Amino acid sequence: MTTLEDCRARDAADPLAPLRELFDLPAGVIYLDGNSLGALPRSVPARIARVVAGQWGQGLIQSWNAAGWFELPRRVGDRIAPLIGARAGEVVAADTTSVNLYKALSAALNIAAQDAPGRRVIVSERSNFPTDLYIAEALCKERGCTLKLIEPHEVAASLTADVAVLMLTHVNYRTGAMHDMAALGSAAHAAGALVVWDLCHSVGAVPVDLNGAGSDFAVGCSYKYLNGGPGAPAFIWVHARHVDRCWQPLAGWWGHAEPFAFTPGYQPATGITRYQCGTQPIISLSALDAALDVFDAAEALGGMAALRAKSLALTGLFIELVEQFCPGQFTLVTPRKPARRGSQVCLTPTGLLPAGSGYAICQALIARGVIGDFRAGDTRQPDILRLGFTPLYLSHADVFNAAVQLREVIRSREYAEPRFNQRQAVT
Amino acid sequence: MTTLEDCRARDAADPLAPLRELFDLPAGVIYLDGNSLGALPRSVPARIARVVAGQWGQGLIQSWNAAGWFELPRRVGDRIAPLIGARAGEVVAADTTSVNLYKALSAALNIAAQDAPGRRVIVSERSNFPTDLYIAEALCKERGCTLKLIEPHEVAASLTADVAVLMLTHVNYRTGAMHDMAALGSAAHAAGALVVWDLCHSVGAVPVDLNGAGSDFAVGCSYKYLNGGPGAPAFIWVHARHVDRCWQPLAGWWGHAEPFAFTPGYQPATGITRYQCGTQPIISLSALDAALDVFDAAEALGGMAALRAKSLALTGLFIELVEQFCPGQFTLVTPRKPARRGSQVCLTPTGLLPAGSGYAICQALIARGVIGDFRAGDTRQPDILRLGFTPLYLSHADVFNAAVQLREVIRSREYAEPRFNQRQAVT
Repeated sequence: MTTLEDCRARDAADPLAPLRELFDLPAGVIYLDGNSLGALPRSVPARIARVVAGQWGQGLIQSWNAAGWFELPRRVGDRIAPLIGARAGEVVAADTTSVNLYKALSAALNIAAQDAPGRRVIVSERSNFPTDLYIAEALCKERGCTLKLIEPHEVAASLTADVAVLMLTHVNYRTGAMHDMAALGSAAHAAGALVVWDLCHSVGAVPVDLNGAGSDFAVGCSYKYLNGGPGAPAFIWVHARHVDRCWQPLAGWWGHAEPFAFTPGYQPATGITRYQCGTQPIISLSALDAALDVFDAAEALGGMAALRAKSLALTGLFIELVEQFCPGQFTLVTPRKPARRGSQVCLTPTGLLPAGSGYAICQALIARGVIGDFRAGDTRQPDILRLGFTPLYLSHADVFNAAVQLREVIRSREYAEPRFNQRQAVT
Repeated sequence: MTTLEDCRARDAADPLAPLRELFDLPAGVIYLDGNSLGALPRSVPARIARVVAGQWGQGLIQSWNAAGWFELPRRVGDRIAPLIGARAGEVVAADTTSVNLYKALSAALNIAAQDAPGRRVIVSERSNFPTDLYIAEALCKERGCTLKLIEPHEVAASLTADVAVLMLTHVNYRTGAMHDMAALGSAAHAAGALVVWDLCHSVGAVPVDLNGAGSDFAVGCSYKYLNGGPGAPAFIWVHARHVDRCWQPLAGWWGHAEPFAFTPGYQPATGITRYQCGTQPIISLSALDAALDVFDAAEALGGMAALRAKSLALTGLFIELVEQFCPGQFTLVTPRKPARRGSQVCLTPTGLLPAGSGYAICQALIARGVIGDFRAGDTRQPDILRLGFTPLYLSHADVFNAAVQLREVIRSREYAEPRFNQRQAVT
C-alpha cells in the first residue's frame, strides 16, 4: 500500500521535479486539467510584456522584421517538431486545430484524388473529438465524399477499397486511450489510405514519432500539454513526400512563395510554409514560444522519454490509489495497460454512487482544490471524471493528495449538496 | 500657406485631441503607418497582464466561463459592429482575414448555387490586396469557378450574367482609393450578384454602413485602425438575410448549435455564431478588446463622423503641404477628392527625383522619426510612399512636421546615401 511518505520519496528521486518551479500555479491547488488548459509557465508574463510594450509599442511596424514576427510560426514549429518526431522545417504553428485539420484533410483528399480517384471515404471514430468530425463532415459535404464513423476496434476492418483517408485522434479526449500510431499507419497504407493524426492530447504528454511511423499529416493544439495559453495557435505537419504535391485551399499570402512581391497570382511556397494562410496573433504565439522553454529544460532532464515514464508513474499511482481508497466506487475507463493510455485517468461512478453524481463529485473536488473535469455521457458512453496528469508540474505527493480528496468527497457524501449540483457549460 | 502655428491652433480646437493620450507611442516619432499596424493603446498592457497572470495563471480552466473567454469573439464582434453599420449579434472577431474571406466567399458561392446556379464567376480588382485574390483563386480551383480580375473603372461593366460574387476591398491598400459601397452594392444586386467587402483599410478609419448599403458579406482585420495588436483576430459579418441559409465549410465546434453537447453530427448555430470555427487566441483577442476602449472614448467625442472629418483634414493638409514644400517632386496617387479617399496618402516620386528613390526616401524619413511605408511598383503600378493618417493619435502639427521632414529629405538629397538603399522585406 503506497503511502504519502513513499510518494515524497519518489518526488525526492524524481529527476523532473525541478520543472515544477517553472510554473506559476495557485497556492493550494492540485491541477488535474492540464489536458484542457496547461498551467502558466513563469517565462510567459515577462515575454508578453516585452512583446507588447517593447516590440509593439516601441518597435511598431518595424518589429515584423526586427523582432522576427513574420518567422515566428515557423520558428515555433521548429520547436514543436522534436516533440512529435518531425524535422525542423516540417511544422508551422498557426491558426486553430480545426482550421489546420481542414487544410490537412483537403490536401489528403486532393492527393487521394490524384493517386486513387475512386476513393472518396473518410474514416474516423464516432468518439473522436467532435470538431474533427464536424470539419470532416463539412468537407465531405463540399466534395461529395462520405464520412464513415466507426468504433475503435473496427479500424482495421473499416479500411476498405473506397477509403481515401483514415483520420484519428492519437489519444482519445474522453477516455485517454492511445492508438498505436505505427501499426494503424501501416494498416492504412497497406489498404491504400492516407492517415491524418490529431495530436491534441499527445503532444508534450506522450512520445510521438510521425516520421518514424511514416504518417502522412498531423495537426494539434498547443494549449494543453504545451502550456501555450488559452487558444494558443495550433500546428500542422505534413510528410515531406506530400508537402509540395498540392495546394491546400486556405491559400493565403503567408503561404505564398513571395508574400511581399504582392503579385495577383498564387504561387505556393515550398515545404510546410504553404500550409500557412494569414497573419498570426503574435502576442498569443509569443506566449507559446516562451512556454516551450519548459521543454528545453525538460530535454536536459531526459526529455519526452522521462516525461512519459513519469506520466505513467503518476497515472498508474492514481489508479492504484483510487482502487484502494474508493473500492468499487468507480470504473476505470482509461486503459489499464500503460502502453495503451495517454496522460489522463478517466473514471465512471459505479452503481455504488448515485446515478448522475459525477458532475457533483467533480465540483466537490474543485471546492477542495483538486481541479479536474467532468464529461457528461450520452446513449453511447458513460459520464466520466476526466483527470489529467501533467508530469511537468505534478508530483507523486500531489497525486496522493488528490486521491485522498476524492476519498473524502465520497466518504463525506458532500457530492449530494445542492451547491455542487448546479451545472454550467465547461470547455 | 498653412503654418505650424495654424496647425497648433487647429490642434487646440480639435475635439479628438485628448485621444492621443490613450496611446503609448515612442518619443520623437511621427507614426504614419497605423494603416499597417496600429499603435499600442495604453489600456492594453494592464489588461493582458490581468488575462495572463490572473485569468490564465490563477483562474486556469475555470476562466473559460468565469472570465467569459468563450463569449469573447462575440463580445468583441458586438463592439466592432457599430463601427461598420452592423447590429449587435451580427459580427464575430475570430481567425484571420484570409480565413474569414474563405468562409464568406464559400457561403456566397453556396447561396449563389441555390439562387442562380449558372453563375460561377467571382469578380475582383487586379489591384486588390493579394491574399484576397489568392483565397478566391484557391476556392475557384476547388469549386471549378472562375476568378475574373478587372481594373477599378471596369466594375460596372464586369457584372455580366455569369457573375456570382463581386469581391472588393473598400479602401485600396496601395492607393487609398475608396469605393462607393452603396452604389456598387446596388449595381451588383441589380446585376444578380452578391457582394463581399474587405474592410481592412476602412474599419475605424472611415464610416461604413454595411446594413445601410444592403451589403451581403464583409470581413476585415483589427490590427490596423482598430489597434488590436500584431496579428489580432479578424472579423466577419454576414447580412441577416443570408446568415442562416447555409453552412460555411470551416464548420468547427465553436460554430455548433451546442458546442458542449459533443455530439458527432454538426448542427450549425443560428446567426453569426456559425461563422466561428475553432478555439480563439484569447490573449491576442483580449488585447483587441482592450484596444476598442479607444473607440468608446471616441464615440463620446463625436464618433466615426468626427474621426472621418479629422482624417480628411489631416490627409488634405498633408497633400497641400507636400505640394507646397516639394513642388513637382511627387505625384499624388490617392484620390484628391475627399469622398474618394480613405485615411492614407500615397505619393510616387516623379521625374525630378532619381528613378527608384522611393525606398530610400522612406528609409531617410524613418531615420528622421517619420515612420511610413514604401511599396514597390511593378509593370502595372508605380513605386509609392504610403503614409497613413490615424486621426486617433496624430495632430495637425504632426502632419506639418512630417511634411517638413519630407522636404528636408528631398532638399538634402540624403536619399542618395547608401545606408538608405539597403532593402529588406517589409510587411
